[in-house]
Amino acid sequence: MKLKIKKETLVNALQIITPITDKSSSKPILSNFLLTATKEGGGAVEFSATDYELSIKGTFPAEVEIPGSVCISARKVLDASREFLVDEVSIISDEKLWVSVEGGPTRLHLPSVDVGLYPQMEQVDLPNTLRFQAGELKRCIDLTLFAAQTSETRKNLMGVCLSLDNGTLAKWTATDGHRLAQVQREVKMEVQETPPEIIIPRKSLVEMQKVLEGTDQEVTLSFDEKTLMLVTEGIVFTTRLIEGKFPNVDQVIPHDNDKSVLIDRQRFINALKIISLMSQDKIKPVKLSLQPDTMKLESERVETGDAFAEVPVEYQGEELQVGFNARYLLDVLTVANQGEKVRFELKGALNPCLIRVPEDATFLSVIMPLRIEW
Amino acid sequence: MKLKIKKETLVNALQIITPITDKSSSKPILSNFLLTATKEGGGAVEFSATDYELSIKGTFPAEVEIPGSVCISARKVLDASREFLVDEVSIISDEKLWVSVEGGPTRLHLPSVDVGLYPQMEQVDLPNTLRFQAGELKRCIDLTLFAAQTSETRKNLMGVCLSLDNGTLAKWTATDGHRLAQVQREVKMEVQETPPEIIIPRKSLVEMQKVLEGTDQEVTLSFDEKTLMLVTEGIVFTTRLIEGKFPNVDQVIPHDNDKSVLIDRQRFINALKIISLMSQDKIKPVKLSLQPDTMKLESERVETGDAFAEVPVEYQGEELQVGFNARYLLDVLTVANQGEKVRFELKGALNPCLIRVPEDATFLSVIMPLRIEW
Repeated sequence: MKLKIKKETLVNALQIITPITDKSSSKPILSNFLLTATKEGGGAVEFSATDYELSIKGTFPAEVEIPGSVCISARKVLDASREFLVDEVSIISDEKLWVSVEGGPTRLHLPSVDVGLYPQMEQVDLPNTLRFQAGELKRCIDLTLFAAQTSETRKNLMGVCLSLDNGTLAKWTATDGHRLAQVQREVKMEVQETPPEIIIPRKSLVEMQKVLEGTDQEVTLSFDEKTLMLVTEGIVFTTRLIEGKFPNVDQVIPHDNDKSVLIDRQRFINALKIISLMSQDKIKPVKLSLQPDTMKLESERVETGDAFAEVPVEYQGEELQVGFNARYLLDVLTVANQGEKVRFELKGALNPCLIRVPEDATFLSVIMPLRIEW
Repeated sequence: MKLKIKKETLVNALQIITPITDKSSSKPILSNFLLTATKEGGGAVEFSATDYELSIKGTFPAEVEIPGSVCISARKVLDASREFLVDEVSIISDEKLWVSVEGGPTRLHLPSVDVGLYPQMEQVDLPNTLRFQAGELKRCIDLTLFAAQTSETRKNLMGVCLSLDNGTLAKWTATDGHRLAQVQREVKMEVQETPPEIIIPRKSLVEMQKVLEGTDQEVTLSFDEKTLMLVTEGIVFTTRLIEGKFPNVDQVIPHDNDKSVLIDRQRFINALKIISLMSQDKIKPVKLSLQPDTMKLESERVETGDAFAEVPVEYQGEELQVGFNARYLLDVLTVANQGEKVRFELKGALNPCLIRVPEDATFLSVIMPLRIEW
């Protein structure tokens, strides 16, 4: 193999690929990526990497003199390329499977793993395709991912459920049993055999957020019941889906919460951060006391101290005290940033609370209250 | 106690104080700071904290209604104050030693430790005083601190030695046995009983760097053989000195290195970073090969790969190969940033190397070479 590639292209490609190669300390081969050069289309290189669960593949223009494939350390090539003081990098492999990565007079010399040993993600034909603006797709992930479960106790909750409705509506839902987030968007669909729903792993969505960051191209999501593929400009991102059934959350979403409170989002965040400071507890319990035009926030009075805050709100109902995990409130307030205000819909001290934003009627979040005995 | 203080003043003061209160997890009382309010000079509060080795004291204007002292958690007050949405913060203590820190309708309520239990740094009369511009003092610390020893094996090397010469010259020296850094500056002195030298602890210098950052006031350093005090605008920083004798390093500084190489600093840094990438070794050995007009850099050829770089240099001497710990070279190149070039003065493969910068004749660094057998 022998090729020349722009330094900027090389660094960008490796910045997308390298995070998934960094994770697999138990399988050294997965710290490598696969580089395949062809003369097709005037010369191109394909970068790909996988950690078995998810894989990323990107194709970029290059000046290819001798086509071929190598499999080398992604982290080393990325870190060295960043330091190269040239615009163009040469990558050359010899017959002994050693690879030179050269930026002017500077050269890395790396052994290539036998390309055949690197795991290949099988290519499958995915019958269903959705089209999104990249920014819209990222927004749907942001608005739900925070509620997905992080511990391994219930595998089917460790991701975001995507379900299709009506032939035009994509619904994203995540829950960890204590809280829930859901958002819906109209999208263009080409659906042949709809699985009722798919569950996309949390870790894959975190990588997808990075790929979608800062672009606003149209992107496609294709899937069957086992695999999901995201295609953006030149980059193909494939992930296995979580097997199992996502719980029916419709019954968890309250419909008769009669107390509605409109709150300034940033003030609420400030107050919650101060209250959380005073709790050593992981749960960070906070008591909200609603009365007309005002919401009080309090931590429990303990010997290490306590905190109190007051936030003006639009509320005319009866007085109500309800406790929450402050962390859960902060999580939803952080992502629900479409506008200045958020709406809390409550019923009683032990009923689930519904959180909405005036600017996006399709978004909702539910948080179970904490029993507060102070 | 009852006072009002500008939020900005409170946050700035606590940003200086809090780092030293965060470190002492073994002594809970040291997570607090002492706040003393007086009506003197139209009202002022003194913030102070200590970790026994070093202490910081700052005095700032405040509107004091009732003078007094409290001793409360620095981290909690700092983190809460940052979130306050007001310009002015009230601090009020009650007769039960509970303290309210109030930003508008938001309030922290903290127990005060008995002020008498908080360790007091004794006030001593320090007979010797040096005057610096803050930036110049910080520069002297930056240029030497990197060479001080971090491990506890030789306590007298765990700091920077300050010695006085001639009545006008302050000499800063640090060494860890493998390398050395030294810089001299003319300063204004009022010296009554000169200790031949003092050794300022590394950790205290790290905090002093922060205090000196971003100001260019004249500051004073006062000391006797046990204590050093730095006074900047409103802030007094006191540290115990390291007891013991600093080694005589004059014999380590080579005077007959006959090979002089002038090197572009940034190119050298880039090349070294690339070479270091290929070494799993903590020492990061790099071989420099000098020949007229060129310096080659190489890592050892091992089965995980190797790296090679070439940097143009001004050199007309005979060929020479010498090995170094790349980390040590990077450390000195990072701080010796007065100009574009650095000068390396060498003799043979096993002789100490002298590093100088053309812009500052009083700075020098010495690095012992590594025996390289490849």
